[in-house]
Amino acid sequence: MRGSEDISKADLFRSAMSRLGAAVNFITTDGVGGRYGILASAVCSVTDNPPTIIVCVNRSSGANATIKRNGVLCVNILSEHQQDMCSQFMKDDHGERFALGKWTDLETGAPALVDATASIDCSIDSICEVGSHSVFFAQVLGLHVHEAASGLIWFDRRYHNLR
Amino acid sequence: MRGSEDISKADLFRSAMSRLGAAVNFITTDGVGGRYGILASAVCSVTDNPPTIIVCVNRSSGANATIKRNGVLCVNILSEHQQDMCSQFMKDDHGERFALGKWTDLETGAPALVDATASIDCSIDSICEVGSHSVFFAQVLGLHVHEAASGLIWFDRRYHNLR
Repeated sequence: MRGSEDISKADLFRSAMSRLGAAVNFITTDGVGGRYGILASAVCSVTDNPPTIIVCVNRSSGANATIKRNGVLCVNILSEHQQDMCSQFMKDDHGERFALGKWTDLETGAPALVDATASIDCSIDSICEVGSHSVFFAQVLGLHVHEAASGLIWFDRRYHNLR
Repeated sequence: MRGSEDISKADLFRSAMSRLGAAVNFITTDGVGGRYGILASAVCSVTDNPPTIIVCVNRSSGANATIKRNGVLCVNILSEHQQDMCSQFMKDDHGERFALGKWTDLETGAPALVDATASIDCSIDSICEVGSHSVFFAQVLGLHVHEAASGLIWFDRRYHNLR
């Protein structure tokens, strides 16, 4: 019984989390560990003094080890018109994930996506390991905010556009 | 110059954060410290084993001290039709914040809003203090997911509805 109860609770948790609408972000890093990028929605603001955000990344992903090695990451918050890039951002060959879009960098050297609705470039301050995920406390060093405000939200297991 | 640069950077950070679309949640608590509720969008999923979320709450808010005293909180993710309750959820008299809506409780005794798109009832596992905010690592003990999926998103400094 315990097994089935556990599965049921985990399913219910995932179902509840599917209702926590969130921005779709392409998290990038670059440095001695190389360049990497991953789609993730578990990002939130913590404090504006010093400007700090939290980013949660699965410990089994290649991005996790690479972010730790580089000590930096950039959160690129996707615009509504970038939904069609999401499949590219999930390619198995992680070099190909950067094949579309125009890229620049801000302060740390992590790739910043031109035309993201905002890019938040950070150095890692500290890390908490919690179950399957690392929680990165990231201090903001560079910022770019696009003139036009549009957003891409993951809610109820599908994309939604905001303007 | 330093002062104006700091203001400018803080403004730019808040502008970037306004592009990080997020669910609108009414975070509640109850227990020896009394009942309290606060609107907040800085909530994210961490891991499903054990089911854990992060909730960031300003240290200057009454909710912060009350959550710490009670050791529990419930994240009520608002549905699109609950936008008109948000002004009630910000009343100065925090008892009045519960005057609208129907309330129940799940596992911890923290108020769960009937008709929220989901309610996530938690005990506090640990707390990190970061600048102006406390980051609560909260283990999920009880869950309720509404049949109908609709959501309320805070993006670009205004509400947006999702269905």
